[in-house]
Amino acid sequence: MYKINGKEYNCSISITSEIFNDKWKLGIIWYLLDGEMRYKEISEKLNEITQKTLTVKLRELEEKGLIKREVFPEVPPKVVYSLTPIGEKLRDVLNTMHSWGIEYTKEFGEIVGESCSPKL
Amino acid sequence: MYKINGKEYNCSISITSEIFNDKWKLGIIWYLLDGEMRYKEISEKLNEITQKTLTVKLRELEEKGLIKREVFPEVPPKVVYSLTPIGEKLRDVLNTMHSWGIEYTKEFGEIVGESCSPKL
Repeated sequence: MYKINGKEYNCSISITSEIFNDKWKLGIIWYLLDGEMRYKEISEKLNEITQKTLTVKLRELEEKGLIKREVFPEVPPKVVYSLTPIGEKLRDVLNTMHSWGIEYTKEFGEIVGESCSPKL
Repeated sequence: MYKINGKEYNCSISITSEIFNDKWKLGIIWYLLDGEMRYKEISEKLNEITQKTLTVKLRELEEKGLIKREVFPEVPPKVVYSLTPIGEKLRDVLNTMHSWGIEYTKEFGEIVGESCSPKL
């Protein structure tokens, strides 16, 4: 049994699933695995996300301890996001999801043109 | 770019995420990694699931090609579910999610009593 902030989980996969199984959160972590990024850069990568949603998702990831937000006192202020050590450890999870998605596509769909690469 | 049934995905993690990121589906696959199971057995393992939801989730997993449903002509009919080869390949994804959930709990929560084990 696992307990986090008073909530109980029978299996640790439920924790992982609850924390980051959301297409936007997955995307944010995926890009941050390449290194720190500014708000605007993340917004451009996830080009269909609204500012409001991105702000909410970033705050949730920060509250869960997966990403770190740093503000540099410049004009205009520079805000940089990066993964925390536990966020960084999601690399393996995302890479296995990446590999499986490719296998699934080979079986039921097709790969056309450029695709994202695993995060080494 | 990945295409499945006319739908396009920029990254294969989106495919994986879309197909099985649902706590019930994750649970069903998790238990089926130990071997085939009857409807009733799955229902007992996921003890909070309603019959209606379980039926829907099993059908969706079957339609996506992750699980196989076999009916044996007995009285009453015996219905057995098992993973397909591509469903079986989710083992690595679930195991990395399992390991990460444990790491996360160690950092932000506590492990108490018995827990689920990785699927070897």
